[in-house]
Amino acid sequence: MAFSEELKERIEYTDSVLKTYMPKVEGFEKTVLSAMDYTVFAGGKRIRPILMSEVYKLFGGNDKVIEPFMAAIEMIHTYSLIHDDLPALDNDDYRRGRKTAHVVYGEAMAILAGDGLLNFAYETATKAFDMVAEGKDNEGVAKELLMRKRIEKALSILASKPGVHGMIGGQTVDVEMTGQRLSKEQLVYIYENKTGALIEAAMTIGAILAGADESAVETIKNAAYNIGMAFQIQDDILDETATFEELGKPIHSDEESGKVTYVTIHGMEASSAEVERLSNIALDNIRGIRDEDGFVIELVKYLIHRTN
Amino acid sequence: MAFSEELKERIEYTDSVLKTYMPKVEGFEKTVLSAMDYTVFAGGKRIRPILMSEVYKLFGGNDKVIEPFMAAIEMIHTYSLIHDDLPALDNDDYRRGRKTAHVVYGEAMAILAGDGLLNFAYETATKAFDMVAEGKDNEGVAKELLMRKRIEKALSILASKPGVHGMIGGQTVDVEMTGQRLSKEQLVYIYENKTGALIEAAMTIGAILAGADESAVETIKNAAYNIGMAFQIQDDILDETATFEELGKPIHSDEESGKVTYVTIHGMEASSAEVERLSNIALDNIRGIRDEDGFVIELVKYLIHRTN
Repeated sequence: MAFSEELKERIEYTDSVLKTYMPKVEGFEKTVLSAMDYTVFAGGKRIRPILMSEVYKLFGGNDKVIEPFMAAIEMIHTYSLIHDDLPALDNDDYRRGRKTAHVVYGEAMAILAGDGLLNFAYETATKAFDMVAEGKDNEGVAKELLMRKRIEKALSILASKPGVHGMIGGQTVDVEMTGQRLSKEQLVYIYENKTGALIEAAMTIGAILAGADESAVETIKNAAYNIGMAFQIQDDILDETATFEELGKPIHSDEESGKVTYVTIHGMEASSAEVERLSNIALDNIRGIRDEDGFVIELVKYLIHRTN
Repeated sequence: MAFSEELKERIEYTDSVLKTYMPKVEGFEKTVLSAMDYTVFAGGKRIRPILMSEVYKLFGGNDKVIEPFMAAIEMIHTYSLIHDDLPALDNDDYRRGRKTAHVVYGEAMAILAGDGLLNFAYETATKAFDMVAEGKDNEGVAKELLMRKRIEKALSILASKPGVHGMIGGQTVDVEMTGQRLSKEQLVYIYENKTGALIEAAMTIGAILAGADESAVETIKNAAYNIGMAFQIQDDILDETATFEELGKPIHSDEESGKVTYVTIHGMEASSAEVERLSNIALDNIRGIRDEDGFVIELVKYLIHRTN
């Protein structure tokens, strides 16, 4: 099967997982549920849950326990987009070619929908505990304990990486420094955290739930770091080179808002080379785990050469 | 010891727990951490963590495992205040006699600080898993498994009650219906969820972590429901009767914003009687668990007769 078809299949699978876990749009509170639903099903690329599920499979994972975590990480990603787009932050009216939540539902409802998604992500992830079979004899009890501890570890990563020492931290510096001269350290901090933290969470959760040992988890973390940085620099490149049709949102928005990015500091050529270098490290990390040149390798390459 | 001194002691204990778990205000991201800190330590009454800890003790709990959950529920309560006060929602400039987060730190940072607190609440609660002693023999393993399952259950309540089918749901209808004629069902829905859900979470988590059986957890849930309703109606009463100095925020704000409350529907006298009735049910529930007329009973009474 061609990569693009394989990717499409993964996206459809992720969408079906999200449909299973997203709350029904009904009841007195249906407006907030509708705003959440609108944004989650706005045609995202599902990169984080796909990376999570593929790393899980790399390490031999073959259980449905990964699914609530896949849904949860996409909910967290989506909440961050809703709040990022708010007038008080990036003030973006379009995302993925569609009007953003606050344009359609109003600011108050967009704030609540973001809160709702972040919160519901944790509610969803805790459903993984209900999937653990109860141990009846000593062996069964030991197995149950092992599975619960893996889920607990995964949950604590899901709770820390998107937070103030991860994604929100990166977002804070990004918002605060807009239009000001960023130091290289601050720029790296933003990229490591704003984009990198969720990718790291996705990939390490996949490894941990599959039972990867500590050194393998470290390798995956390293791969994730490089993918995250490459992904973010590619984002800067696309803001300069892509068209509105390709991106589904305004182009040159960084330039217009006076934002300092990797491209504005280092130039286009060095930025492209850095994306290539980071990606090669990530690919080597992944090849070290499994020789086979499979879907994950193709996925990482796709993340480099994407045009939207 | 007089009740007021006992309460003060509980508030100080809760503050010390919060100080242990709140992130240090440092690093590139320190502005968001500062906004979180500013609001968490703005002199809250700590009703939710105190209720949690007292119910935990009612059922014989005597371990530090309750503390990350106490901190977590107060963080969730505080995030909801920060977002509630935003210009797009209630647009309140004062809370507890101090300027609100968005007035001091700006809207963007207030949104991020709320997100940060909600997220950090779950990060904090997952730290309870690290407190479980590892089982070495069969008996130890069984005990470890039991403790982990209690924490998992507590975590799933902490993740669901503040969410779209709980607090955020109530907040959604409250925001959406401001200035419009609420049905009685909608008003009850708002009160059950906007205020009741967190109180229910606090008290049931206390019971579950202490190992209360299912029927006792149900009794506590019922008590929490009645306390939550009474508390919210009392809030409406105070908005009509208290002074700015007592409340530390503008009075008659409900009336001025044309908000329909329990008091505007049923009148002051019937509202006071309803607070009394609900509180008596709650008191009976609690007395049924433990005969002793102890601190929890006094606390519930205090919640009725409070003037701020």
